[in-house]
Amino acid sequence: MKDQAYRHGGFTLPGEAGYEKLTLEMAEKWGADVIRDSDGTKLSPEITEAGYRIYSTICIIREHNEFAAKHPDAQQQTFLSSDPVMAEGEVTVIRPLEGFFEEQFQLNDSPEAMAWWEVWDRTKGERVPRENWSFAEGQVTVRNCRKYHRYTVSFLCWRIWEEINMYNHTTNHWTTEHLRQLDPRHPEAWSYLQQWLRNWCENNPQTNVIRLTSLFYNFVWIFGSDLRRRTRFTDWASYDFTVSPAALEAFRAEYGYALTAEDFIRGGKLQATHRPPTPAKRDYMDMIQRFVAEKARTLVEIIHSYGKEAYVFYDDSWVGMEPYGKYFRSIGFDGLIKCVFSGFECRLCAGAEVPVHELRFHPYLFPVGLGGLPTFMEGGHPERDAAAYWMHVRRALARQCVDRIGLGGYLHLTIGQEKFNDAIEEMGIEFRHLKELHAQGAPAELPVTVAVLHCWGSLRSWTLSGHFHETDGNILIHLNEALSGLPVKVKFISFEDVRGGALKDADVLINAGREGDAWSGGDAWKDPEIVEEITRFVYEGGALIGAGEPSAAEGMDTRLALAHLLGVDLDRGDYACHFPWSFEEEKEAPFRVDREAVGVTAGIRLTDPETRVLMSRDGIPALTVRECGKGRAVYLGGFTYSPGAARMLLEMLLYLTGADGSAAGHTSHPLTECAWFPASRTLVVMNQGEEPAETEVSCPGGTLKVRLEAEQTLFCRMDG
Amino acid sequence: MKDQAYRHGGFTLPGEAGYEKLTLEMAEKWGADVIRDSDGTKLSPEITEAGYRIYSTICIIREHNEFAAKHPDAQQQTFLSSDPVMAEGEVTVIRPLEGFFEEQFQLNDSPEAMAWWEVWDRTKGERVPRENWSFAEGQVTVRNCRKYHRYTVSFLCWRIWEEINMYNHTTNHWTTEHLRQLDPRHPEAWSYLQQWLRNWCENNPQTNVIRLTSLFYNFVWIFGSDLRRRTRFTDWASYDFTVSPAALEAFRAEYGYALTAEDFIRGGKLQATHRPPTPAKRDYMDMIQRFVAEKARTLVEIIHSYGKEAYVFYDDSWVGMEPYGKYFRSIGFDGLIKCVFSGFECRLCAGAEVPVHELRFHPYLFPVGLGGLPTFMEGGHPERDAAAYWMHVRRALARQCVDRIGLGGYLHLTIGQEKFNDAIEEMGIEFRHLKELHAQGAPAELPVTVAVLHCWGSLRSWTLSGHFHETDGNILIHLNEALSGLPVKVKFISFEDVRGGALKDADVLINAGREGDAWSGGDAWKDPEIVEEITRFVYEGGALIGAGEPSAAEGMDTRLALAHLLGVDLDRGDYACHFPWSFEEEKEAPFRVDREAVGVTAGIRLTDPETRVLMSRDGIPALTVRECGKGRAVYLGGFTYSPGAARMLLEMLLYLTGADGSAAGHTSHPLTECAWFPASRTLVVMNQGEEPAETEVSCPGGTLKVRLEAEQTLFCRMDG
Repeated sequence: MKDQAYRHGGFTLPGEAGYEKLTLEMAEKWGADVIRDSDGTKLSPEITEAGYRIYSTICIIREHNEFAAKHPDAQQQTFLSSDPVMAEGEVTVIRPLEGFFEEQFQLNDSPEAMAWWEVWDRTKGERVPRENWSFAEGQVTVRNCRKYHRYTVSFLCWRIWEEINMYNHTTNHWTTEHLRQLDPRHPEAWSYLQQWLRNWCENNPQTNVIRLTSLFYNFVWIFGSDLRRRTRFTDWASYDFTVSPAALEAFRAEYGYALTAEDFIRGGKLQATHRPPTPAKRDYMDMIQRFVAEKARTLVEIIHSYGKEAYVFYDDSWVGMEPYGKYFRSIGFDGLIKCVFSGFECRLCAGAEVPVHELRFHPYLFPVGLGGLPTFMEGGHPERDAAAYWMHVRRALARQCVDRIGLGGYLHLTIGQEKFNDAIEEMGIEFRHLKELHAQGAPAELPVTVAVLHCWGSLRSWTLSGHFHETDGNILIHLNEALSGLPVKVKFISFEDVRGGALKDADVLINAGREGDAWSGGDAWKDPEIVEEITRFVYEGGALIGAGEPSAAEGMDTRLALAHLLGVDLDRGDYACHFPWSFEEEKEAPFRVDREAVGVTAGIRLTDPETRVLMSRDGIPALTVRECGKGRAVYLGGFTYSPGAARMLLEMLLYLTGADGSAAGHTSHPLTECAWFPASRTLVVMNQGEEPAETEVSCPGGTLKVRLEAEQTLFCRMDG
Repeated sequence: MKDQAYRHGGFTLPGEAGYEKLTLEMAEKWGADVIRDSDGTKLSPEITEAGYRIYSTICIIREHNEFAAKHPDAQQQTFLSSDPVMAEGEVTVIRPLEGFFEEQFQLNDSPEAMAWWEVWDRTKGERVPRENWSFAEGQVTVRNCRKYHRYTVSFLCWRIWEEINMYNHTTNHWTTEHLRQLDPRHPEAWSYLQQWLRNWCENNPQTNVIRLTSLFYNFVWIFGSDLRRRTRFTDWASYDFTVSPAALEAFRAEYGYALTAEDFIRGGKLQATHRPPTPAKRDYMDMIQRFVAEKARTLVEIIHSYGKEAYVFYDDSWVGMEPYGKYFRSIGFDGLIKCVFSGFECRLCAGAEVPVHELRFHPYLFPVGLGGLPTFMEGGHPERDAAAYWMHVRRALARQCVDRIGLGGYLHLTIGQEKFNDAIEEMGIEFRHLKELHAQGAPAELPVTVAVLHCWGSLRSWTLSGHFHETDGNILIHLNEALSGLPVKVKFISFEDVRGGALKDADVLINAGREGDAWSGGDAWKDPEIVEEITRFVYEGGALIGAGEPSAAEGMDTRLALAHLLGVDLDRGDYACHFPWSFEEEKEAPFRVDREAVGVTAGIRLTDPETRVLMSRDGIPALTVRECGKGRAVYLGGFTYSPGAARMLLEMLLYLTGADGSAAGHTSHPLTECAWFPASRTLVVMNQGEEPAETEVSCPGGTLKVRLEAEQTLFCRMDG
């Protein structure tokens, strides 16, 4: 496949000063048209003047330690809760920051901040009256305590170490000065940042694209002082790091009600993205999103005024600029860059409304990877990592393409990594080929629209909260990953959307999560209107896939609000003394069951003898189908992504909807997939397996029998 | 051990007409002093006049089919809920009894009963107004339905087949007439029953003891029409079968508020004993207990007036006469008979305040056992079953003895079962020896009082709801079984008792169950007073053992209300994004850990780095210890009863309390146990294992080194 036609363009190379020759050699090898710097690297004139377009990385809120030293009140903040302290008598002393990483946090005991502090009797679940506690010399003294009750302090603190910098220091042993971060809500800081950006643009005429990495507020990373729990909390989509007395006052002024520390602290558990948001949190998020969009728009306008373009990297300080949020388009970015391990991340990027979509591949050119394992060092196999990620990314690109790909990090680490370098070269060629096919006309799709229902709806399209490996305990990310490469339309809807009629143009509804989480839906299921509408949808011919603990909530007559459709329910003890229906596993399932991909959920039991059990384990139904009027419902106890799992999901969708798979191209070998591009009459066949595979492919362009090497991509023009 | 001294007495033999010779032979072999009849057998004059005391079994509410035919409204009743029916339009028709066993139930559509019927929109969780439904020709028609909502009917029905008789028919293929049962709350039935009992006493002068089996209301057994779910519901301690319009009216008159069908139906799940009782259920139970005691007292008085004694069998229609209930003693029974598989059942019987305590051993002389497996038929091994049960019973008898033992069933089934017959003979001898030791003076006990805390407190001392094998999914029954043979005091306390100071004379508190069940405690844990009192208890030197999901409830800052003591918490998703403390399993535990007995509970995580993890599985702490002030707390993820498990619990108690095990006798071999009887200076050593064991025993009487055969009991007089 060394086709000269696909050897150049759409590739962003990380250059590195001191390695000018390498930079230009690798740019040639990988067909780069853009050279960028990275966090920790610089570009030299030999590179910037070599005729490539230049991206320059800017983290706008960082690298201003001098300003931060002069204006410590311009730094960013967060709410934290102390660990509980048990009262041994009438007086309890609490050092709020005990147990937190002292290099990350510093108490904010200014009067504006103290006004938001709270002390709680957690045993009783009650706020302690303000007159019963005082603060002095770094500690809170609580009076009139009840012996043996546990007390906590909710407090505001400064974040004195920008978290990505903190990560790089602790992971990659950086020893440079700790970078601080400014809050654009601080008026002087905001003026300063705008002027700083103008100066930067003046002084860097060679830069074509400013790569914002990212905007203002980082996802949440709370470190502890004890190495046995260095990371106390991490949530890629949390808004906790956006808070400040000024933000709280702005909220009160706009919404007419005040938030409290407890809106953030939630009994010490914080408002993690995996939990259903409260109405107050939704209001707060909307305010932050508007704030971020407005400030970002100003930055983009400055960048444009210097004739440069503004791309945004969506992974670090991105909070509030969700690409599927209401205000993203108003910012006016010229490009969106997403780092990807997985197919769902490609779809997230590719589907955003922005002119240029770019993927930054993994592995990052760093000694160790995000998971902490070696990559570009002894023990690492970067070429294997790259190939494994490509298996995920390729199938998503076959469905919906992006404009560019690229890498990041220290280019010099590629020296001697010939296998890796060749693999990237090959991926570049395949990417460009796929991109051209898409440019000629979209691939064929089945007439199937899958609606994924959860609390967040489209705001959290495709992603839950971070990368696959950070959220792989959630069944939904496995389903999203499978969906990312299937020839179906996928949309993400909220319960509000269901009330608004979102099921009208859906064929299959998916709900997948654990009881009480944002993905299953929690208390949203207590609304009978939702249950009624979904029942209508299924009985009139729609399909339902419930996975894990779908529609689970307490207080109804079944634990799963959709138990009457699924034919199974979740027993958390409510069924004590009630016998379930006995069943026999069906010998022939109506679609191919990948038994390794299917798991069980403890407590699932059959509630309807007409439910067909396609697979069970230890007497627990794991995969069931039930007819509901004109529709069908599938229950899946567990689902672990694999090529075989994706294939099972495709066949399940075909069975549920009655669609003809070959309309979009269908392969006979379960570990192969394909995409049919009618405009270019080209069939792309991918072997997702680790063994060679012979497969027959049928598509509107004809039928084909081919043999693919392990992981191979085949581009076949079907000329008739 | 063929000591002539222990060959006679304290043994109740089931005689059988037609097998007179066998009856007298076996009476001789087993040392019987009493002969009884059984359900399904009769005694002939050759037996009753042979010089033995005679027990006659009476099920007072059964065997009155003629009266029942004339007074069908005197039969017993129950509330049932129909299965939900989904509305397909504005009108929904429900046949209430569809899916129930038609030979067990018959609708009660009398006006008094219909007044209590209800129709529910289960989708909405709302009662349907009375004007929207009507009943005719066995079916309920609901109007103004909302399409796709599910509707149920809660209704009263007659129970037309006494459940023990139904069980014997369906299990043992009886073909005799189905027996009906009368409700003593029906005035004419009550008069009739008293007169019937008087007549019976008149006509049976040979009977010394009337063995009531039992009183009025059976435990609940609801059969379905479909063999795939023949048993729909079974709860040994449910009060559902006590209900009737008359009972409901009596309740309203006494308590000033009315119960409704939903108080029984609870969304179709009934008020199972494993669930925490509502206040209304507690009131209702108290009323039924008083009613049962009052009526039973009248029967006992009649029996006494004929010079006979009244023993009660505590297993069938016993509901409302709990031996640890407030009114049991007022009935005036002369004896309590408990059938036993397990040690906890012996303790339950032995500890009741009643003159004579008798155990009916298993296996019952029936072709199949309670679990449905063969016993006295091909494939059965009754001698093995008997020995297995004896291993449980013996250790409990060593702690607290009963007055009598015996068997039940068809004596002719023992023909040819020499091994079984010899085993029973041997058990009789050992029992009598133990009984004599107890008579001379109680065995030594450790200065340790264990308080088991659950919603039911002393009312459900030792038992949960039925036999071990019916409740073995509950961790507490395993702990109770282990405790039944340990040299400690055991009491069962409720949350109300904790408020009343019940911890003052406790050394160890046990709470063991699943979140939301009656054993863990459910919402009772939301009371900070409880948490405070238990915290005080532990910090001042008490010990806590939490097992499974102890103290679990939603809405607090930790899922386990006692997490701050245990050092672990249960994550049901609340900890999303929070990292647990990492830990290393300790290499040397402070007591012997039986790893096979310890299980894990999914979702358990370490919340305090000072918690010592003695055992873990798949990264989940399974057994932990934490120091709390002067006390200690143990968490146990799972506990499966075995001799080794009991030993671990003993050693755990010694560690937690600092008690000296040898004060009550302590064995070196973990599968052996002992009891030291100081008054008779006798040491009883028991091998609970299936292999011979050498063990050293130290007790206040001295030290001993002995070898025991598998399962052997050794009685050693320590004279020096």
